[in-house]
Amino acid sequence: MKIVTLGELMLRLKSPGLERFFQSPSFEATFGGGEANVAVSLANYGMDAKFVTALPDNAIAQAAERELRGLGVDISGIKHTEGRMGIYYLESGTNQRPSKVVYDRSYSSIALATPETFDFKEIFIDAQWFHITGITPALSQSAADLTLAAVKAAKEMGVTVSMDLNFRKNLWKYGKKASEVMCEVVKFVDVVIANEEDCQKSLGIECGSEVESGELDTAKYETLAKTVLATYPNVSKIAITLRESKSATHNDWSACIYDGEEFYVSKKYEIKNILDRVGGGDSFGGGLIYGLLNYDNQRDALEFAVAASCLKHSISGDYNRVTADEVKSLMGGDGSGRVQR
Amino acid sequence: MKIVTLGELMLRLKSPGLERFFQSPSFEATFGGGEANVAVSLANYGMDAKFVTALPDNAIAQAAERELRGLGVDISGIKHTEGRMGIYYLESGTNQRPSKVVYDRSYSSIALATPETFDFKEIFIDAQWFHITGITPALSQSAADLTLAAVKAAKEMGVTVSMDLNFRKNLWKYGKKASEVMCEVVKFVDVVIANEEDCQKSLGIECGSEVESGELDTAKYETLAKTVLATYPNVSKIAITLRESKSATHNDWSACIYDGEEFYVSKKYEIKNILDRVGGGDSFGGGLIYGLLNYDNQRDALEFAVAASCLKHSISGDYNRVTADEVKSLMGGDGSGRVQR
Amino acid sequence: MKIVTLGELMLRLKSPGLERFFQSPSFEATFGGGEANVAVSLANYGMDAKFVTALPDNAIAQAAERELRGLGVDISGIKHTEGRMGIYYLESGTNQRPSKVVYDRSYSSIALATPETFDFKEIFIDAQWFHITGITPALSQSAADLTLAAVKAAKEMGVTVSMDLNFRKNLWKYGKKASEVMCEVVKFVDVVIANEEDCQKSLGIECGSEVESGELDTAKYETLAKTVLATYPNVSKIAITLRESKSATHNDWSACIYDGEEFYVSKKYEIKNILDRVGGGDSFGGGLIYGLLNYDNQRDALEFAVAASCLKHSISGDYNRVTADEVKSLMGGDGSGRVQR
Amino acid sequence: MKIVTLGELMLRLKSPGLERFFQSPSFEATFGGGEANVAVSLANYGMDAKFVTALPDNAIAQAAERELRGLGVDISGIKHTEGRMGIYYLESGTNQRPSKVVYDRSYSSIALATPETFDFKEIFIDAQWFHITGITPALSQSAADLTLAAVKAAKEMGVTVSMDLNFRKNLWKYGKKASEVMCEVVKFVDVVIANEEDCQKSLGIECGSEVESGELDTAKYETLAKTVLATYPNVSKIAITLRESKSATHNDWSACIYDGEEFYVSKKYEIKNILDRVGGGDSFGGGLIYGLLNYDNQRDALEFAVAASCLKHSISGDYNRVTADEVKSLMGGDGSGRVQR
Amino acid sequence: MKIVTLGELMLRLKSPGLERFFQSPSFEATFGGGEANVAVSLANYGMDAKFVTALPDNAIAQAAERELRGLGVDISGIKHTEGRMGIYYLESGTNQRPSKVVYDRSYSSIALATPETFDFKEIFIDAQWFHITGITPALSQSAADLTLAAVKAAKEMGVTVSMDLNFRKNLWKYGKKASEVMCEVVKFVDVVIANEEDCQKSLGIECGSEVESGELDTAKYETLAKTVLATYPNVSKIAITLRESKSATHNDWSACIYDGEEFYVSKKYEIKNILDRVGGGDSFGGGLIYGLLNYDNQRDALEFAVAASCLKHSISGDYNRVTADEVKSLMGGDGSGRVQR
Amino acid sequence: MKIVTLGELMLRLKSPGLERFFQSPSFEATFGGGEANVAVSLANYGMDAKFVTALPDNAIAQAAERELRGLGVDISGIKHTEGRMGIYYLESGTNQRPSKVVYDRSYSSIALATPETFDFKEIFIDAQWFHITGITPALSQSAADLTLAAVKAAKEMGVTVSMDLNFRKNLWKYGKKASEVMCEVVKFVDVVIANEEDCQKSLGIECGSEVESGELDTAKYETLAKTVLATYPNVSKIAITLRESKSATHNDWSACIYDGEEFYVSKKYEIKNILDRVGGGDSFGGGLIYGLLNYDNQRDALEFAVAASCLKHSISGDYNRVTADEVKSLMGGDGSGRVQR
Repeated sequence: MKIVTLGELMLRLKSPGLERFFQSPSFEATFGGGEANVAVSLANYGMDAKFVTALPDNAIAQAAERELRGLGVDISGIKHTEGRMGIYYLESGTNQRPSKVVYDRSYSSIALATPETFDFKEIFIDAQWFHITGITPALSQSAADLTLAAVKAAKEMGVTVSMDLNFRKNLWKYGKKASEVMCEVVKFVDVVIANEEDCQKSLGIECGSEVESGELDTAKYETLAKTVLATYPNVSKIAITLRESKSATHNDWSACIYDGEEFYVSKKYEIKNILDRVGGGDSFGGGLIYGLLNYDNQRDALEFAVAASCLKHSISGDYNRVTADEVKSLMGGDGSGRVQR
Repeated sequence: MKIVTLGELMLRLKSPGLERFFQSPSFEATFGGGEANVAVSLANYGMDAKFVTALPDNAIAQAAERELRGLGVDISGIKHTEGRMGIYYLESGTNQRPSKVVYDRSYSSIALATPETFDFKEIFIDAQWFHITGITPALSQSAADLTLAAVKAAKEMGVTVSMDLNFRKNLWKYGKKASEVMCEVVKFVDVVIANEEDCQKSLGIECGSEVESGELDTAKYETLAKTVLATYPNVSKIAITLRESKSATHNDWSACIYDGEEFYVSKKYEIKNILDRVGGGDSFGGGLIYGLLNYDNQRDALEFAVAASCLKHSISGDYNRVTADEVKSLMGGDGSGRVQR
Repeated sequence: MKIVTLGELMLRLKSPGLERFFQSPSFEATFGGGEANVAVSLANYGMDAKFVTALPDNAIAQAAERELRGLGVDISGIKHTEGRMGIYYLESGTNQRPSKVVYDRSYSSIALATPETFDFKEIFIDAQWFHITGITPALSQSAADLTLAAVKAAKEMGVTVSMDLNFRKNLWKYGKKASEVMCEVVKFVDVVIANEEDCQKSLGIECGSEVESGELDTAKYETLAKTVLATYPNVSKIAITLRESKSATHNDWSACIYDGEEFYVSKKYEIKNILDRVGGGDSFGGGLIYGLLNYDNQRDALEFAVAASCLKHSISGDYNRVTADEVKSLMGGDGSGRVQR
Repeated sequence: MKIVTLGELMLRLKSPGLERFFQSPSFEATFGGGEANVAVSLANYGMDAKFVTALPDNAIAQAAERELRGLGVDISGIKHTEGRMGIYYLESGTNQRPSKVVYDRSYSSIALATPETFDFKEIFIDAQWFHITGITPALSQSAADLTLAAVKAAKEMGVTVSMDLNFRKNLWKYGKKASEVMCEVVKFVDVVIANEEDCQKSLGIECGSEVESGELDTAKYETLAKTVLATYPNVSKIAITLRESKSATHNDWSACIYDGEEFYVSKKYEIKNILDRVGGGDSFGGGLIYGLLNYDNQRDALEFAVAASCLKHSISGDYNRVTADEVKSLMGGDGSGRVQR
Repeated sequence: MKIVTLGELMLRLKSPGLERFFQSPSFEATFGGGEANVAVSLANYGMDAKFVTALPDNAIAQAAERELRGLGVDISGIKHTEGRMGIYYLESGTNQRPSKVVYDRSYSSIALATPETFDFKEIFIDAQWFHITGITPALSQSAADLTLAAVKAAKEMGVTVSMDLNFRKNLWKYGKKASEVMCEVVKFVDVVIANEEDCQKSLGIECGSEVESGELDTAKYETLAKTVLATYPNVSKIAITLRESKSATHNDWSACIYDGEEFYVSKKYEIKNILDRVGGGDSFGGGLIYGLLNYDNQRDALEFAVAASCLKHSISGDYNRVTADEVKSLMGGDGSGRVQR
Repeated sequence: MKIVTLGELMLRLKSPGLERFFQSPSFEATFGGGEANVAVSLANYGMDAKFVTALPDNAIAQAAERELRGLGVDISGIKHTEGRMGIYYLESGTNQRPSKVVYDRSYSSIALATPETFDFKEIFIDAQWFHITGITPALSQSAADLTLAAVKAAKEMGVTVSMDLNFRKNLWKYGKKASEVMCEVVKFVDVVIANEEDCQKSLGIECGSEVESGELDTAKYETLAKTVLATYPNVSKIAITLRESKSATHNDWSACIYDGEEFYVSKKYEIKNILDRVGGGDSFGGGLIYGLLNYDNQRDALEFAVAASCLKHSISGDYNRVTADEVKSLMGGDGSGRVQR
């Protein structure tokens, strides 16, 4: 089963450990980006994952590609074009001090890409699933056009489309509001992944829960899920992640799913010593796609996704470096953390 | 508004991460000291902070000065004199294992300094505030003389004086008890900063709370605060930090303030994954001075100080590397630690 | 008082910090092994500890010996023989992600050793105590023979014998079940150290407590302890460690002891930010031997052992780098983690 | 004596040690850029150096500014504007393997800056010297305009202007050839700094020496120098650096100067274990400005510059972290490298 | 053009920088082995390289495989079998202090492998070239059998066979002398790669040059080459590397080749600051295979191989991380090491 | 054969790699000191070496002692007294940039020690050799008294005394000139170790060679040696190290010896990539003592010493971490640096 994801691959420059920027003159340097993260998750679970993007042809981008290939992701669809490799700087928070991201993504190759950059007919050959996020259309008008062209092409070729709404308020600077673009794109999406803020900011659909307070009322999320499916009849499923953020180090983590019939809320995991939150949502997306393709019911699919993304909080870097067996072990109830000898 | 602080600037040699000394053959090497820490906090908040000390004229001390200047502190008042640069070795604890400090401060330039080392008339020109701690008078008789001369000169020039009592039992080795010296110095102080042990050991004023037990009875602190102001009528305000130490990694942190009229107890922060406790009290002092100079009421000033020092527990190194905006964000209630993108 | 321990000394290769294997191209490289860990604990407490093993004569093993000698352990009984130095690879877990150990111990010098490799008459001269674990007999038939020969020799020479049952299911690959071997060895043991799984898998004695659930019923452990002493009349004492594993980072830790008369359960420590669990059981063993030799009652001995091993969870590496004074401070109630200046 | 420099300040991301990119997942992260490097040199020699640039207002640029301030450079003229902070990636070569630079400077704040971004009247108040390089006009048309406006303003205010021609073939991508722009700018320059390739590519003036061969014929450089002064009568002095590159690790280093009267060739230094070549030319520029301002003859000025830049090859990072005394010691003949205790 | 290599892939544990073992408690941890090194070189040059070996199925071996795949090597022929992953410990020398290797390769999966472990018919489908070394037959009788079976199968399928004789005196411990085995294997080899010691110890063919003295007499090597081709008429070409070792840091490096008609000696490179010598011979082998497959004459092929392996001395780790363009640039004469911007 | 050395043991804080102080916020932290370095050399060669000093009783000094014990040095003679542990800060130079040492040794325990601190009768029991340096008497009057008392006691007990004159101009600050003290101490010395500057500054005996020029005239050293033995008839042997310092990275290294009869000049080693020069002289001293005790002629003894100290230049840290076999291999002519597999 071949799954295609398309989006930006960035250089991630993180200050060492829990230091603020430049307490030491060095960066931990890895790579990541929402859609690549999903592809890596799927490859880790043994799926045939292909990641498509545009990158400049330089030594830094080559290193990023080499790592993806090593992790088992098909990189044959990556185009080398004009533009930069996007960067994000990261400072990991702890306790009451939040993590901080500084974006340097302007003029990236993917932001400069257009629908013509890629040959979707070729990309989607033999593909069963296509995954994108709301980040790419936030980058530029041409990237928004590209996103829309991609989902349309996928639908035409009978490929299931999932989208993580992923609202980022500090992107969306080219003159359009998120909802203007996203409400159109989502018409070609089968499976929506979101959190509450995403629904509100990307689709203009609200619920009453207060995100900042930490305590969540799952009933409201059921209403939200139903509203989304009512508004977009093409959407067959929506999964909503439920993060209760007590501090930068301590979150509760769960999710719910609705398929038009059953509203199911997952087990909740208490994560008290978060190592790296970034990529947590993407690991949920990767887990959910795996789950929906490998289980015959949405409950197990959701539990796989939640367990997978729970583990991600204990993995440094954007990529969720866990196997399907490790996810299933936690999903099966073993969160005791006993040494595996 | 110019604020002057005077005290020792030390080399801080910390074993890497959470290692005990010399598990690895290296030290994290930074700089700090109570009064310099306060100056850095103030500079970070955009205040005009000047740090005065005596240091040897060597490459290590020059590096310390360079960093302070980079952080925006005025170092023009630093004197280069005989003596060493003081050092403290630090091993960070966690859980039930406490952090451990080994002092190597004997014969430092500041310990050898005398009232004549500095020209206070020049130092206090245009100054509005002067801050010292109980550490300097603990170093040597001449440093105690220097401290007394400094606060007297400040008062003569109409400068507000704050003092963090900061009792350190392993200093005070030159033949005087802390209370002998401090009771005299405090007569020239407007704002006292202390914890319970400080009041007892430095001023001989007790309350009944058991510091070791972790649970604090704030009522007793009101009595303590009132006793201090009654004993020292020159003191217009006292702020007392309330640390409930559940483990080396887990503290509750709050404070109270008394101005002769209102006794106010701050919000309490639960800090479960302490990164670096050292300098926590100093960051409170820096925050309090900023607060008293920038808010029109002691409640906000105290809340700023407590939020600032709460954040310090998540910053490595002596200096509290946070901005006033970051403090205000926490003070305003956002301790959820959500990623700032 | 001379205490002898005998077992394998391994190279421990750990991925940096909390990384998964090869996220960075480096290993933290230290040494350890159950019986060496016990010897180091005892040397740290000021006891005369001798560690006996077989190692190849190469630069890596020499480094391991040099470190032990530096830590005050008598290494004069180490033999240089054919075979490799065993290795274990370690990945530290956190939260719901467990630590992972990959063994590379096959064909180690100690696995190839036989009863003839060592001269027990010489080794036990002046010895008061001999400590082994259930790991050595799991390595090979010859190592099992060696273990049995060692305990017999010790008993003949009037040396007290302690054994940590230490069941490891991924060793025991040479054709015998653990219980076949251990039930014979334990007949020459005075003090048994175990956890529930050890008793079940090594001695075939069960209790009903569910190890995975985290919550423990100490009553069941009393029954277990009594059964062991009833089954092996030569055993005068059994100590059982009680680990409640809530996550890889958060364990509750206590123990109980039974001497045929009194069943005593220790204070329980909540450890919320575990730094390194590996060697935790060994640090208990080292603490217990110290306690039984230095206190006149088993309660204090057990409390010393539990406090010592509580601290181990905050020390990186196999060896428990704490002094007897540090253990006694915690044992005496000071777990507040206040900075020791 | 106040010296102003203007140009780009970049983040420098270097692979660790002598590794190729991403052999390890980290970068050594420092800052630099030709004109900032000159300012730092001058501040290190005790001069009043001011660095002017445009930078975005983010945490990374702030760290760069903080470091400059710490090094004693006046940063009050830095403007915070739209655009990115430029980056260059660096891989250090050795032996036959050359160092490799990957630029990511497009759309930087300084490339987007225009003559109106800065108030030159204010910038040059009290200034005696102004230094620029041929890098800024290579970035964009607006940066070229800015450069021309700057040198004109300086000349109008009676400020001496020096320019390091600094030809970089991989910049100059906005449609103009270097010589088109540089031939105009150099009409407002008093002191030209160059190597042979610079003269050829920036000014269209050639000599016959073969740069690649390593062996240099200084006679040809005399002709070159005379041609430049003949072509540009406003230029009163030209200094040419003479690098004989035997390998990435082994260079011979000298320079010559011509003031219209005397052609002087400096002492030659053999540097066999180059630590970091990048910034070598800038350290020559900084040394030359210091020399011309502090010696009464061009010979000493040149020898200071050559000794300063010789030392730079043994300093990591863009900035030449040496004092004037250290330069004078080498200039005075002590290159023996004996330990200074 | 598909090239297959077969041999051992090891974990390489190197002490940091130029430290002796365990001056710091860490290892630089990478992977390598003669035949894998050749495969990586070929993949770097854009060839279709396949590496075949046997490895255990554990997390360490998986990381090794992941890296190879990332580097573009086809790993589909790797078998997961019983046995360990071999290790070699490395300490890098400098000046008069030689590098030191400690092997821990016993009982590795490849040492335990037999001719039946692999299906050569499948492995050699579409293959044009097969490369092995004299290391594998040194490991064990079964590995020697495997080597012989492999070259026979290759010859039967019309695949060109190259072999690097690679004599290692501390392997060859299973009871056979190198020459007993190698003289048989070499009967199925087309291209022999060797140094003088290899010929002597592996094939029993001597020349008179003194390897230790550093100065080489190439005439003797012509005789040696001719003798080998006379002795083994199946061998069509022999290439001999000529290392003049002046110190651990300073070698001269060249090679010669003989094809039965022309004896050609390459350019000589002086390498004065060797970064990593290990894998130098393998990088020659990889370069030679590329050269013979891509140039129409043995002179260019040899010059490519020598330039490629010259560069390897400036690359850390076993793998020669250079492109064909980089090799050609040096081969074309540019060894000046000027910064590539 | 028991050899005793007495002197200061310091913490050595070195900036990482070749960085200047505080380019990174860390120090490489090891231990060393002239006399301890000699003891470690001797222990490495298998001799029974005892190191005597005074140290404070804190965690840093304990780590230093632990390392010495691990290296096989007898530390039972170390006294714990008042005072600090001395420190030296080190910055490693390269090329024309010299290494730089900043001392922080004032008020160290050994500087405060007196003849009464140690019981020489006990220290010298069974001792055959006693080694000191000219550093200890430079520290303070009491340390000078101690030194004199020590050599007198040694002579009384029939112990051979060696002294490395080791002149350090930045010590000797307590009011006496080096020659005043040293001329007295040397009257109790059997074997003098020196370089030219030492003889001149410590004993007031000059020769005409110019140390700075690099080229040495050994004839002058013969005269110098003869003058020393003529002046001090008690001295039976003098060894003079001959360092030709071409740069911080490139030295030629040899030595000469004179025993009243034969003047012998050793082989000369060219060291082009010095890793760490500090401790080079001490490694010569350690090698010479070993040589004189283990060879029957001064030529071999000297060659051993020179080879040993040649190797030290390729070892980081104060201690010369080489075995006698490694020294003998170089002494026997193998300086080719070929990999030892």
